[in-house]
Amino acid sequence: MSSRTPPPRSTSRDLERYAGLFASRTKGMTSSAMRDLMAVTARPEVISLAGGLPDTSTFPPDTFAAMTGRIAEESCARALQYGPTEGLEETKRCIAEVMAAEDMHADPEDMIVTTGGQQVIDLVTKTLIDPGDVVIAEGPTYPGAVPTFSSYQAEVVQIDMDSDGMRVDLMEEVLERLDREGRKPKFIYTVPSFQNPAGVTLSVPRRKRLVEVAHERELLVLEDNPYGLLRYEGAPNPPLYSLDGGVFVMYLGTFSKILSPGIRLGWVVAPPPVLEKINLGKQGTDLCTSTLSQLMVSAYFEESRWRDYVESLTDIYRTRRDTMLDALADHFPPQAEWTRPGGGLFIWATLPDFIDTTDLLARALRENVAFVPGEAAYLDGRGRSSMRLNFSGCDEEDIREGIRRIGEVVTEQVALYGTLTGETSRQSLPHDGAQAVVSPQPAPESGGADVLPLPGRAERERRATP
Amino acid sequence: MSSRTPPPRSTSRDLERYAGLFASRTKGMTSSAMRDLMAVTARPEVISLAGGLPDTSTFPPDTFAAMTGRIAEESCARALQYGPTEGLEETKRCIAEVMAAEDMHADPEDMIVTTGGQQVIDLVTKTLIDPGDVVIAEGPTYPGAVPTFSSYQAEVVQIDMDSDGMRVDLMEEVLERLDREGRKPKFIYTVPSFQNPAGVTLSVPRRKRLVEVAHERELLVLEDNPYGLLRYEGAPNPPLYSLDGGVFVMYLGTFSKILSPGIRLGWVVAPPPVLEKINLGKQGTDLCTSTLSQLMVSAYFEESRWRDYVESLTDIYRTRRDTMLDALADHFPPQAEWTRPGGGLFIWATLPDFIDTTDLLARALRENVAFVPGEAAYLDGRGRSSMRLNFSGCDEEDIREGIRRIGEVVTEQVALYGTLTGETSRQSLPHDGAQAVVSPQPAPESGGADVLPLPGRAERERRATP
Repeated sequence: MSSRTPPPRSTSRDLERYAGLFASRTKGMTSSAMRDLMAVTARPEVISLAGGLPDTSTFPPDTFAAMTGRIAEESCARALQYGPTEGLEETKRCIAEVMAAEDMHADPEDMIVTTGGQQVIDLVTKTLIDPGDVVIAEGPTYPGAVPTFSSYQAEVVQIDMDSDGMRVDLMEEVLERLDREGRKPKFIYTVPSFQNPAGVTLSVPRRKRLVEVAHERELLVLEDNPYGLLRYEGAPNPPLYSLDGGVFVMYLGTFSKILSPGIRLGWVVAPPPVLEKINLGKQGTDLCTSTLSQLMVSAYFEESRWRDYVESLTDIYRTRRDTMLDALADHFPPQAEWTRPGGGLFIWATLPDFIDTTDLLARALRENVAFVPGEAAYLDGRGRSSMRLNFSGCDEEDIREGIRRIGEVVTEQVALYGTLTGETSRQSLPHDGAQAVVSPQPAPESGGADVLPLPGRAERERRATP
Repeated sequence: MSSRTPPPRSTSRDLERYAGLFASRTKGMTSSAMRDLMAVTARPEVISLAGGLPDTSTFPPDTFAAMTGRIAEESCARALQYGPTEGLEETKRCIAEVMAAEDMHADPEDMIVTTGGQQVIDLVTKTLIDPGDVVIAEGPTYPGAVPTFSSYQAEVVQIDMDSDGMRVDLMEEVLERLDREGRKPKFIYTVPSFQNPAGVTLSVPRRKRLVEVAHERELLVLEDNPYGLLRYEGAPNPPLYSLDGGVFVMYLGTFSKILSPGIRLGWVVAPPPVLEKINLGKQGTDLCTSTLSQLMVSAYFEESRWRDYVESLTDIYRTRRDTMLDALADHFPPQAEWTRPGGGLFIWATLPDFIDTTDLLARALRENVAFVPGEAAYLDGRGRSSMRLNFSGCDEEDIREGIRRIGEVVTEQVALYGTLTGETSRQSLPHDGAQAVVSPQPAPESGGADVLPLPGRAERERRATP
């Protein structure tokens, strides 16, 4: 730099200088609530019921050492090298084994191994969505999918759920309306089993109907199934993929919940023409998935104890779920409702609609406890009186204490509202206060399933003027 | 499926069914040549000079075992768990140490640890590029960036290079022209040291001028520096990042070439407002970078021998480069030209313009040898008589044999052209046949630097009617 001195370092912190350069997609890019919370919840004094964290302390360090020892001995150079974009053959064989455990039969040629399940959502959206295109999703939906859909400027239509999962009848009404507008969704995104965040499971009749609708209307479906094997009671429901045979249903799987999220290993099974585009997208994104992680999985499967580990997780998480359900009954006020998941990692609790859970979180963090505010699971501002509670990442003592602390701040808010309005808060409730209980067994389609208690627009406006 | 039977599995292979669903960005998404080649070059009988593969067999399995043993003992549960999107603090400290080895001083707060360097290119493009926005890049450019830029529908203007790297004077002319059209590039993408694929290095005066231009015009620069520490002779040139101080220069680094590409670990340093958007993009893409990979790096750095390993790589690759240069002189016809890189992994060879290296590759593969056709390094169809040759991934014997085989098919093509046209091929050359030799020492700016021998449009049209 002969004649010019570079500006001082601090000028790089000047937002104005760069703001004009950002792509328009960045306007819709917001932070996933869970990610933001991670910094706070990393503090040891905080009990976090926020993350979707499995308890990796349950994994035997000896097994880890055996796996990596095997790699060091047999395939060190390979573990450190680039691999094919679509993934290693031996890793795909492990994936086929995991899918077979849920009665799915996928051809390794129709798979791509990905950098976690999250990358599948990203690559499928990249492949299919132009700005303004429609995605159908559950309401509430996986909070981690919200920023992804936003970054591709998708229009997301969220379908209400009840204790039998997504209301497929309401979805059909939406499809009819879109049809009249000359629009067709690019895909339907669903977590049918032990849904994140609601904890509910799509019933068998609805699964069949959803697949039928996909065929009738030639609609792609992205089935996200991280929790299918984490079932705490009852018989399994067939995955959409097995009902459809892989014609319209794309399947997203992950090792995050049955082995480790830290190795970032997921996969997608999709029809070949779609898979080819996903592969191209992945090339441009990260070339290939970590070879080390892929070999970790195949070394693990050679130990032949992966089903035992999943079973041990199932026992641990079942107990934690029961602990959380008991604690909710003990510490949450009678106006609160919550789901009773038959598997997975999450309970969805809904409070009286005058409580804003994003505001509540600030109070909860002062008490050193965290949850995910329900708003994070919607793209349209709904969910503001709900919260997602995770029961897999903490031990029973922390679950009880965490729920006790949240219950305390909720109870305070309920009392405060009563004082301010002169009403008993119970009278202001739009719901009857009964808990929405999810049947752990797949229930037959019934007209009696309640829509999850979620505030509508009118209720939100009401809440704005207390 | 009560009344309907799902269509047979094979219908999922029907392209027509899905074609209408693809996003318009997929039209520009083409496969990176290296990725396509990987399937072929995985065959053991093929000598591949195509990949950008470091030789991971040089890494001591004992060290690998020590690293993973340490993780198993000290941080197994953490290695298997999600981490913060921006990366682990201890990994960032290792990154700061690598950057300091090239005299750069970056604040860990200004870094994000990424899934390989490729993800940086993807996330920066995602953050900055709307369809039709301009990116300035070198011509030829990193072939792996080509599909990324295409997937965001960027308009890429490629600036010719000579033995002193990108012609910054030509870049300024392009900026002037764009300015007259009322357009401004969103960023300049450059690999200043031991460029991929050309092997040339940007001279110090051009580095200074490039940073000056960035400041004068308030232009962001993405400096991609995977090879800076793989220097085989001469003194290092200052990175653009250290000249600029991180105001307009974003820095891309990677562990792929100094430790392992298989762990997929890279990083970006960028001004905070840009970094924040990159972080949001990464959340939606893969949540966080493999914790296992990050802890591998920090365990490796605690062994305190990373500089020794880089030095050993430098010795090995220097010898391989020399072997390849000798083999080229022995086996390539006198009409061919090539660069003489002072570091990195690649030599760029240019053949008479009547030879199409994409066609030539098919012949070469029949002889069980592979290279990357030059076309892969351009977005505009140029580079068709050039090739990228990698000298890091094979031992000396394979390098000699590989170059001998390629030389043979090239010589055949030259002879065939002479027979068909009645000309001696030498007379048809637009160049003088002299080798473009890269000075290993940073040379002062001179008017005598030759533009890399790349065919222009007129030449390509000529070649189409032999």
